[in-house]
Amino acid sequence: MKIESVEWFYVAMPEVQDIGDGSQDALLVRIQVGEHVGWGECDASPLTSIASFVCPMSHSACKPVRDSVLGQRLDDPADIRRIVDLVRANSMDLLQADHTLSGIDIALWDALGRRLDEPVFRLLGHRHATPKLPYASQLFGDTAQETLQKAQRVRALGFRAAKFGWGPFGKGAVEADIEQVAAAREGLGPDGVLLIDAGAIWRDDVERAAALLPVLQQCRVTWLEEPFTSGALDAYRRLAQRSGDVRLAGGEGCHNYAMAEHMLKYAGIGYIQIDAGRIGGISVARQVVDTAHACGVTYVNHTFTSYLALSASLQPYAGSEADLICEYPVEASSLAVGLTHEPVVPGADGMIRVPERPGLGVTPNLDVLARYLVDVEIRIGRQVVYRTPAL
Amino acid sequence: MKIESVEWFYVAMPEVQDIGDGSQDALLVRIQVGEHVGWGECDASPLTSIASFVCPMSHSACKPVRDSVLGQRLDDPADIRRIVDLVRANSMDLLQADHTLSGIDIALWDALGRRLDEPVFRLLGHRHATPKLPYASQLFGDTAQETLQKAQRVRALGFRAAKFGWGPFGKGAVEADIEQVAAAREGLGPDGVLLIDAGAIWRDDVERAAALLPVLQQCRVTWLEEPFTSGALDAYRRLAQRSGDVRLAGGEGCHNYAMAEHMLKYAGIGYIQIDAGRIGGISVARQVVDTAHACGVTYVNHTFTSYLALSASLQPYAGSEADLICEYPVEASSLAVGLTHEPVVPGADGMIRVPERPGLGVTPNLDVLARYLVDVEIRIGRQVVYRTPAL
Repeated sequence: MKIESVEWFYVAMPEVQDIGDGSQDALLVRIQVGEHVGWGECDASPLTSIASFVCPMSHSACKPVRDSVLGQRLDDPADIRRIVDLVRANSMDLLQADHTLSGIDIALWDALGRRLDEPVFRLLGHRHATPKLPYASQLFGDTAQETLQKAQRVRALGFRAAKFGWGPFGKGAVEADIEQVAAAREGLGPDGVLLIDAGAIWRDDVERAAALLPVLQQCRVTWLEEPFTSGALDAYRRLAQRSGDVRLAGGEGCHNYAMAEHMLKYAGIGYIQIDAGRIGGISVARQVVDTAHACGVTYVNHTFTSYLALSASLQPYAGSEADLICEYPVEASSLAVGLTHEPVVPGADGMIRVPERPGLGVTPNLDVLARYLVDVEIRIGRQVVYRTPAL
Repeated sequence: MKIESVEWFYVAMPEVQDIGDGSQDALLVRIQVGEHVGWGECDASPLTSIASFVCPMSHSACKPVRDSVLGQRLDDPADIRRIVDLVRANSMDLLQADHTLSGIDIALWDALGRRLDEPVFRLLGHRHATPKLPYASQLFGDTAQETLQKAQRVRALGFRAAKFGWGPFGKGAVEADIEQVAAAREGLGPDGVLLIDAGAIWRDDVERAAALLPVLQQCRVTWLEEPFTSGALDAYRRLAQRSGDVRLAGGEGCHNYAMAEHMLKYAGIGYIQIDAGRIGGISVARQVVDTAHACGVTYVNHTFTSYLALSASLQPYAGSEADLICEYPVEASSLAVGLTHEPVVPGADGMIRVPERPGLGVTPNLDVLARYLVDVEIRIGRQVVYRTPAL
């Protein structure tokens, strides 16, 4: 079957706030393959990714992503690999292409799964999907007191693991950060799995990060996430050598396989966090799972948005029992929560299960999309190269 | 002084061909700082970079580049560093931002140099600019015979060094590549410095690249450039261990400091090639120069477009005597060649000198820009967020 159309839908909350909540907008892609439809979602900056799909060619290695996708055959997983390789070669010098490709790859897996009547994880070689322990992923409160209450709330909701990140963390005095971590542990109770996310705030400042190691160790924090920017391999490794039982986590900024490989080999991390909506899609994420295992590193999804993004990010390691925990957004916007007909929620045992339905097992709710749809038009000369399509 | 305006101009040849010639379009940026004007140029995909400047905010770490630039103070080099850091933090999740930032950083250095009446290289700490040996940078011919003629031509023009890349190279049989390399050496004569650029064609296939080592060694090729994609550190290192006197070159794909650092530390390269229009501008490129020296790697500019891009890419290592050679485009489009009033051409001794004039020492020719200007409009809802400004 041929890829007949690729349509982009930019949706956003009426007001996007200046906070670390990545669920306030989304870029959805709908791909028609023969009689089948697949949906995907890209992380971050919808307008920029749309532009990378429709832009004029700059030269032979800087073509619009569109040129490598429309009209291609899609009959089996090897076709997806071929299309991904084609995008990477033809858009090598188009930086944003990796994010754009991510949504496309996800939609292609969804379409193929629906066509073959199989969940994506099975097409990826997993015989069964194992239950994952979800951690409630949320922002720090503005104060330690607020963080305490947020931790108590997710504990009351039944979560046995929780992560706090961004907000004021790392931006002020070390003492304030220490209070925040202690409040999170107190609110979550002594048994909960506690994770802390610094949101790359210290860039490559090892000493500033190390100042928090005593409280992280004392509060039995399982991982410290993104103390530094994604590529700061040396800083990661130096901190990892001093962090004891607190392991480092990172990798969400990786936008291709090589970057993830560098984190696995050179950064000394204990957990690699991959966002299928950024790294180039499910195909690349699946590759990283294998490399992570070979390196003795635990794989975790990175997801802070919709159930569609969550399903896509879980598929690559759905059958990997050793990789037990998964990120689970609990503060997503009404847009992100309502985006699919089917929610992906913890079962009675508190565990998350990847949908057993064909494809990603979730379908966008077009009424909700319509409510949040952003009307965009891009014109070059006299030609309209993009206009928000009809739902 | 304050940054009062940042204006983007997308220029392109009337027909952009599907060849590896990156000079067929360009994205220029004009920044007004008080009474001074600076110009910069970004590499690749103008529409996408414009979108990254004007897009709506997605969340606190995915803001449009504009938000971190407009209204900022610019009084000395430390201000540029501060603005670069701000863009990186505020647009951390906006992948294209690094390319967009590159043009802005270049324009800020140009404006500051003009204001302080100094060439940029002096503001970067170089007391003098040393002459560079330019290598004529061009594409392989479609046939070995054509490559032979191209090599003879640049030799006749007085170039003592030449590079051939892209075209059919690496896409067919090894034998065809061997003929191409031999033809290049024959045309250039026995004394010329011969460089070969594989344009990342083998991705990470070490054996395919290694098959060419005998002819590269026999033809005394100084470097083999980009046998693999930028992040394929292991493949680079394994090939480097076998390449003998032929050194590896790479790095043009690096879009931030960390990526260049990884190439320097883990790839075993002999030459690091940095494009100021991609890595985040002159500031980051200057950092890479120092790290390259600490790693015993030779620094070279990557430039395949205008004299403005050439001047910008030469400034970071202008005073470094150990880094003798520089890339010099000899097949640039009429757009690229005419883009500035002042050409940067070899002197009577065949050497290239960075302009000693304030800023970058070159000024765009607005008549030429007007001739190639692409008319673009981006509308979101009822608001036009970008329209090609008046020259």
